[in-house]
Amino acid sequence: MEGVGKIGILGSGSWATALAKILLASQKEINWYVRKSKNVEQFKDLGHNPNYLTGVKFDINRIHFYSDSDINSFFRASDTIFLVVPSPFIKQFLKRVRSSSFKGKLIINAIKGVVPDENILVSDYLQLVHEVPPENIGVVAGPCHAEEVAKERMSYLTVGCFDIKKAELLSSILQNNFVKCSISYDVVGIEYASVLKNIYAIAAGICNGLNYGDNFQSVLISNALYEMSNFVNTVHLVKRDITESVYLGDLLVTAYSNFSRNRTFGNMIGRGYSVKAAQMEMNMIAEGYYGSKCIKELNKRYQVNMPIMNAVYKIIYEKAPAKETMTDLAKLFK
Amino acid sequence: MEGVGKIGILGSGSWATALAKILLASQKEINWYVRKSKNVEQFKDLGHNPNYLTGVKFDINRIHFYSDSDINSFFRASDTIFLVVPSPFIKQFLKRVRSSSFKGKLIINAIKGVVPDENILVSDYLQLVHEVPPENIGVVAGPCHAEEVAKERMSYLTVGCFDIKKAELLSSILQNNFVKCSISYDVVGIEYASVLKNIYAIAAGICNGLNYGDNFQSVLISNALYEMSNFVNTVHLVKRDITESVYLGDLLVTAYSNFSRNRTFGNMIGRGYSVKAAQMEMNMIAEGYYGSKCIKELNKRYQVNMPIMNAVYKIIYEKAPAKETMTDLAKLFK
Repeated sequence: MEGVGKIGILGSGSWATALAKILLASQKEINWYVRKSKNVEQFKDLGHNPNYLTGVKFDINRIHFYSDSDINSFFRASDTIFLVVPSPFIKQFLKRVRSSSFKGKLIINAIKGVVPDENILVSDYLQLVHEVPPENIGVVAGPCHAEEVAKERMSYLTVGCFDIKKAELLSSILQNNFVKCSISYDVVGIEYASVLKNIYAIAAGICNGLNYGDNFQSVLISNALYEMSNFVNTVHLVKRDITESVYLGDLLVTAYSNFSRNRTFGNMIGRGYSVKAAQMEMNMIAEGYYGSKCIKELNKRYQVNMPIMNAVYKIIYEKAPAKETMTDLAKLFK
Repeated sequence: MEGVGKIGILGSGSWATALAKILLASQKEINWYVRKSKNVEQFKDLGHNPNYLTGVKFDINRIHFYSDSDINSFFRASDTIFLVVPSPFIKQFLKRVRSSSFKGKLIINAIKGVVPDENILVSDYLQLVHEVPPENIGVVAGPCHAEEVAKERMSYLTVGCFDIKKAELLSSILQNNFVKCSISYDVVGIEYASVLKNIYAIAAGICNGLNYGDNFQSVLISNALYEMSNFVNTVHLVKRDITESVYLGDLLVTAYSNFSRNRTFGNMIGRGYSVKAAQMEMNMIAEGYYGSKCIKELNKRYQVNMPIMNAVYKIIYEKAPAKETMTDLAKLFK
């Protein structure tokens, strides 16, 4: 294979669709695994994803669709595979992939979440369960709402790889006139930051729902960045600048933007919805819901002081009253 | 004098009014210098500031008003004086104060700007021109929109003094059930951060006016925090955590909030207004307008790499086209 070879996208949600749009700006063709063949048929008929970012038109001739049981063919036909499914589904997708299908493939985690039940990062899961060597693992993240990519509004990504040369190759194919892409070797830090920012966006939403204002929100985010920095530095100490857009920027866009489903989920909780009611009404997965459980578990080992994560966990898993919990949290801020 | 003694507020804009509200939560009485006696009369009649935060009712019996030529009496009657006037007016206010009136007074800078023409911080100006010794100078700042203080929405301040014991005393009188106050010895860093965030809020407004989206805004702010950190560390190197609310939080609330006049000013520039037209329509002073000129001048000495400040300066002082200038700036971000 030359460069990154043939590109495959696994998943068909809004971020997968945005990534397909980005990748087709540099690639002649891509492989795309969409779970249900029914959706592939609709996609081909309509010329756009039938369910997400429906305003983004695709040249169907440049996409090789795979679906249903084709997942191993999809892997074999691709050299670099972007994993872009909601984290709760990642295990059931990957368990159908044979070990041999992973051989020599570069696997890029574009899932902003953790592997449920296992409470480990996607990069760890790939190594432990699917025996993907670290040099063949990467991550792509950054403050990049799919809805804005669809509109070609200037956005920034960061691609991290244990093998920095692969990050450079990937960066070159992810860049175009509306996306700028930086590189990093901090795969683990980026993955954790991506999980944490969803939790903090839930906290921001809860406070918004409780009628806290802009002053408080800014203090919450400042304290969240501090907490994030402490956690990633404890878990994976490398030289990193937490003000870079893949850490701070992604936190900001998730915690401030109305496109953020985590913030929306939190907002409903703050306004008095139960977790179940909020999830039913949203009909979407707020990754931070799973993320807070995972980080809570993980942090039993690291014992980092994480008052914001703990508050979110208490509210959504232990039914702690949102108002009192946030009042207590606010006292710790400075 | 015991503690901070009698409190005086110099200025009657929205932030002065919010500070008066905050201080009256802990103080029985305050002195308040309002330049025009006509406004004092109206204030007394209405029971609220006639021009700003008109929804905040005051018990007039607890306020000793001073106006017009009373400024020296105001100084003599007060032990701790909060300077809360727009930076363009600070010189003309203070030049009427006799040197002897400053003797033994604690002067707290609550102006989020620099002294025009001089291009120096208020704390420097107080030392150089009015011979106030450093131990009698402080600063109060933080993510604290006056409009939210008026509504008693949870807000955070930081008070910085060269003499940390004085910061502790001040913090205790600024705290109440809707304001939490931290202390710091980083007077200079806080003053510079307060100036810089206004410039970055103008940049955020310009980009918003140019139709950049949330993704870009988050990257702009991430890069702004990096630029702020570089500048304050170069100009005044002390141990500071740039993620604290007085630095990052104040940047966020100014750059993201719709209450921010700097952001509004930038937005109009981005939408094609001339600087003059924007200033006339707003009928308010955007501190960042003066701030960018000052930092531009100052930085000739320090030579810190400040692409965002330079872009704002070019657009508002050199009539550089906003769109092209921001397109060039965007290329530098990561």
